[in-house]
Amino acid sequence: MTRPPQPHHDGSALYVSTQEPALGETVTLRLRVPDSYPALDSVLVRSNPDHEPHWDSAHDLGSVDGWQWWEAQITVANPRHGYRWMLVRSATVSAPEVEWVNQAGVHTGEVLDAADFSLVTRPGPPDWLTHSVMYQIFPDRFATSARGPTRSDPAWAEPADWQDPVDPVMPSRVRQFYGGELDGITEKLGYLENLGVGIIYLTPFFPAASNHRYDAASFTTVDPHLGGDEALIRLIDAAHHRGIKVIGDLTLNHSGNGHEWFQRARRDPSAPERSFYYFSDETADAQYESWLGTASLPKFNWASPQLREAFIDGPGSVVAKWLQPPFNLDGWRIDVANMTGRLREVDLNQEVRTLLRRTMEQVKPDSALLAESTNDATSDLTGDAWHGAMTYPSFTRPLWQWLSAPQPTPYRTAENTEETVPWFFGQPAGGIPAGTAADFASAVDTFNAPIPWRVRLANMNPLDTHDTARFAQHAAPGTAPTAVALQMTLPGLPTVFAGDEFGLRGADGELSRTPLPWTQLNAPDLCHRMELYRELISLRKQHRALRDGGMRWLHTDDHSVAFLRESSAESLVVFAAAPSAGELHCVDLAEELPGAQTATRLWGTAELITSATGVQLRAQGPSCAIWHLPGVVLPQR
Amino acid sequence: MTRPPQPHHDGSALYVSTQEPALGETVTLRLRVPDSYPALDSVLVRSNPDHEPHWDSAHDLGSVDGWQWWEAQITVANPRHGYRWMLVRSATVSAPEVEWVNQAGVHTGEVLDAADFSLVTRPGPPDWLTHSVMYQIFPDRFATSARGPTRSDPAWAEPADWQDPVDPVMPSRVRQFYGGELDGITEKLGYLENLGVGIIYLTPFFPAASNHRYDAASFTTVDPHLGGDEALIRLIDAAHHRGIKVIGDLTLNHSGNGHEWFQRARRDPSAPERSFYYFSDETADAQYESWLGTASLPKFNWASPQLREAFIDGPGSVVAKWLQPPFNLDGWRIDVANMTGRLREVDLNQEVRTLLRRTMEQVKPDSALLAESTNDATSDLTGDAWHGAMTYPSFTRPLWQWLSAPQPTPYRTAENTEETVPWFFGQPAGGIPAGTAADFASAVDTFNAPIPWRVRLANMNPLDTHDTARFAQHAAPGTAPTAVALQMTLPGLPTVFAGDEFGLRGADGELSRTPLPWTQLNAPDLCHRMELYRELISLRKQHRALRDGGMRWLHTDDHSVAFLRESSAESLVVFAAAPSAGELHCVDLAEELPGAQTATRLWGTAELITSATGVQLRAQGPSCAIWHLPGVVLPQR
Repeated sequence: MTRPPQPHHDGSALYVSTQEPALGETVTLRLRVPDSYPALDSVLVRSNPDHEPHWDSAHDLGSVDGWQWWEAQITVANPRHGYRWMLVRSATVSAPEVEWVNQAGVHTGEVLDAADFSLVTRPGPPDWLTHSVMYQIFPDRFATSARGPTRSDPAWAEPADWQDPVDPVMPSRVRQFYGGELDGITEKLGYLENLGVGIIYLTPFFPAASNHRYDAASFTTVDPHLGGDEALIRLIDAAHHRGIKVIGDLTLNHSGNGHEWFQRARRDPSAPERSFYYFSDETADAQYESWLGTASLPKFNWASPQLREAFIDGPGSVVAKWLQPPFNLDGWRIDVANMTGRLREVDLNQEVRTLLRRTMEQVKPDSALLAESTNDATSDLTGDAWHGAMTYPSFTRPLWQWLSAPQPTPYRTAENTEETVPWFFGQPAGGIPAGTAADFASAVDTFNAPIPWRVRLANMNPLDTHDTARFAQHAAPGTAPTAVALQMTLPGLPTVFAGDEFGLRGADGELSRTPLPWTQLNAPDLCHRMELYRELISLRKQHRALRDGGMRWLHTDDHSVAFLRESSAESLVVFAAAPSAGELHCVDLAEELPGAQTATRLWGTAELITSATGVQLRAQGPSCAIWHLPGVVLPQR
Repeated sequence: MTRPPQPHHDGSALYVSTQEPALGETVTLRLRVPDSYPALDSVLVRSNPDHEPHWDSAHDLGSVDGWQWWEAQITVANPRHGYRWMLVRSATVSAPEVEWVNQAGVHTGEVLDAADFSLVTRPGPPDWLTHSVMYQIFPDRFATSARGPTRSDPAWAEPADWQDPVDPVMPSRVRQFYGGELDGITEKLGYLENLGVGIIYLTPFFPAASNHRYDAASFTTVDPHLGGDEALIRLIDAAHHRGIKVIGDLTLNHSGNGHEWFQRARRDPSAPERSFYYFSDETADAQYESWLGTASLPKFNWASPQLREAFIDGPGSVVAKWLQPPFNLDGWRIDVANMTGRLREVDLNQEVRTLLRRTMEQVKPDSALLAESTNDATSDLTGDAWHGAMTYPSFTRPLWQWLSAPQPTPYRTAENTEETVPWFFGQPAGGIPAGTAADFASAVDTFNAPIPWRVRLANMNPLDTHDTARFAQHAAPGTAPTAVALQMTLPGLPTVFAGDEFGLRGADGELSRTPLPWTQLNAPDLCHRMELYRELISLRKQHRALRDGGMRWLHTDDHSVAFLRESSAESLVVFAAAPSAGELHCVDLAEELPGAQTATRLWGTAELITSATGVQLRAQGPSCAIWHLPGVVLPQR
């Protein structure tokens, strides 16, 4: 789709004077409108204080580089202050008399409040969260310690050798135990630092009765099979020395049925822990609520003040314990955050997440909080607590839909010799539906339109996770650079699942948990992929606009997307294309790019050609490139 | 836009087995898919219990009249249970592999939860609310009593004669007092019954210091200038004898500064009423919060338990008093409902509205509750309290955009000789932006997609209100039948502002409050318009499908819309067109309509022509028609 330049505003510093306004603070907003756009009489900002419209006039700052800039000042009236732009022109101009600009784009008809831009008065995500690349580690499968045969396997485990294939069939699926250790991670910190990783996200390190440890038996100690508390302290200390943050993984929705709380609650109906869960009655053999009916995962009852106190409320709570010395964890990813506190007529989710975040701010203001919410997370991403989400419809799934190879039906994989259609996380049927590059861009827009800009910057952008198949499993040949480049350059928190950089495959969320093949580390065919990650992470570190610059689509079509990340310091053009191998894909941009003649290609193989007629981007087969341009110039006042 | 038939589901009885499911109840859902649609492998329903997707399979019921029907059963998991349809086909069919059907239509990409269909477990609106036509009366301007010179004017008033023009300039705007009385309304009940009115909505009847009475001085007595409590009892009794319901108008956001509560609160910082408002401190000359900074309208502080008890909580509260004998009011329209309980960091709106509704259900379960929320009301229209809203973007404003005459700029009106652009309620600039019929349909879809079907049925559809200009003020010549027909046939609660049926004009919300010109009642040129209302209201009464039947667009283009209201008993085709006067506008429907050959035109002048190639609708200039067809046939099982 040709995208002629459109009026644009986003939450970045080019357009918004502060990312953390106070209630009552005056904030300056800017809108840019192409000079080629039909003339405007006036521009207003519509806010909605206390859910009643309020209007502020913008004034024309003048025009530069083909853009007219408008500026308005608004006063922040609510903790989440929504606003949109209203463009007004005389009925004598042959164009719509009124247009609206919100996070979903430009509209001639009236729009819903849901896609308003928004300012949030609560403290924002820590800088390190939005300025780093995250690396997800599933502790049992990352690395054993080299310090010797310290391995001890739990009684329930089925010990596996590091080279054994992953067994996806129950009960081995959850019992197969490779013996990865926290010290194993500590020993690989040099590797991670070299890769450019800024944040390690550890899936649970609590004792449990499974290899994934989401069925915690305690929240107060580190699983001794991982090395115990001391190993975690060693890991976090060592990571911090290298400037790497470490976040943990906590399930607030349920515990394991082996959890000390649940054991006490079940044994003794008068125990305080009884109130932590939903028991059907006060008898010893009472029924209880559990996660999706799985009896081994009893669901927490957040109406219990005792549970809140023990778990999330104040410096003595579980949540706080790990953020403080001697552990000094840097934050949490909350498992099943979407279901937490929700059951039938009860919805305490907002209470729980805001209380949780209050405690975290109390004991460690600079900590990060991410929510697992695998489908549409937008209704919970208001900026009141979660900095961002591990969610799939805003990036991962539409990327797969675009970049997966056409799938025979039924589908046969190397790892899974049974005939099956490819598994698409969170969807029960239909395999991976095909989608175009434009569909991908449209999904990015759809699922980012309802959330504050700063939440968008902290939303995780994974190609895959421990819960999904590996991207490489279904990727069309040659598309990895395009996928990784998008992950590293679109707004959001790039999240690499350990092993992505090894090109690991895996047909579902179990088979993707392959132990990392460290012996292949220096294999020649792996160098390219490792280098791909190293280069792109490095580029993201060097160019701040890739982290928090504004974002505008330049072009989308069936086979490619092009967009800008912009600040006053620099502009970066990203062109990501996936035509068939060998096919030349050319895109004539509808927009003139100031400075394109001298654009520097920072990375990639696609080409940018300037001529008298404008800018053309060219990709030969699946390819990608990133160019550097001068920063955005505002009119001089 | 040609609209080939699309998969369809809505909340009506054709598709949903119950409108008031209990939590845990199994509900049967149906989807119809055109036979011409690319073949489907399977159809699923995606629910989202506790915010985690859950899937139920639908089975194919077979095909009849060109439609394949699918049926699924789902279990209601939450008080508002959202769901959407997933259509899956083999990748070998040349069509998208997955499509989604939600309240916003059919989509190939993943969709947000916000437009899911939804079931609501709370008691629904009373039948009488969704099966009647509402008539809005502004008491000072409707009618004086014929019983003689009982008129008494308040001290602040500027008495006006019934024939005097309305003065839109402050302070006369709020002081001009025509002396309408509740007994005047009682004496016109025969007129209203004859018109077909089923519900009278009275703007405030409380004592106040303005002609609009939104600045209540008390909530416990009827303004004596309106006839006092006894007059209201007489009115409601007489209305009930004719089968007409009466609802009142209550402001929960603020009172007048002359209100007995505020007077006590202001005089005495230790008075219980002090907590009802937001005072800056405990001194006698403390500042206080007020509606949009208007000092005469002090804002209520809903954090006060005493305010809740006095006003909305339980049978002894203000809200309850009027619903019970001797008054027996049938419900409330809540003024400024959108701002109620909202101020800066405080948002108690949901608490207040649900407590209010609980009290109403306690004392009069069959009562109605409507919210004023003039712009996007959808975030409050969850089904938890408000049955519907008085809101303008879902019907009124887009209808004006389509049907208003082109406006010279600047604009001069008969009533307002100052040059001014026409006033568009809720928008500070731009007059009435032009829109097409398709834009109108699109706005109807946009603003109904986020709300439960049953809320849609109770949402008010006014052409204008006491707060807006009159529709007739700007209407293009000859479009009144089209407008009124849409109001009476689209899903929603048709709301006639007293005087619409007289063809009254008025350039803004003040000038529209013209005293009703009863002396013109039998004027020949008024007969047509009165008859228009009488016929369409009568038609709506006779044909239940116009009230709660399913709704499907058949066609939209720049100048017309066509849609169906459907049930198993009957189908009604509505064609509403507004080409230029004298211009013939023909529409070839993309869909075959079973029984179209013998369609009966129930009302209107547009034509329906059947031929071998299908159905053509024809309008000569602005016109409209409604046809009757057989009901929808489901496959026999």
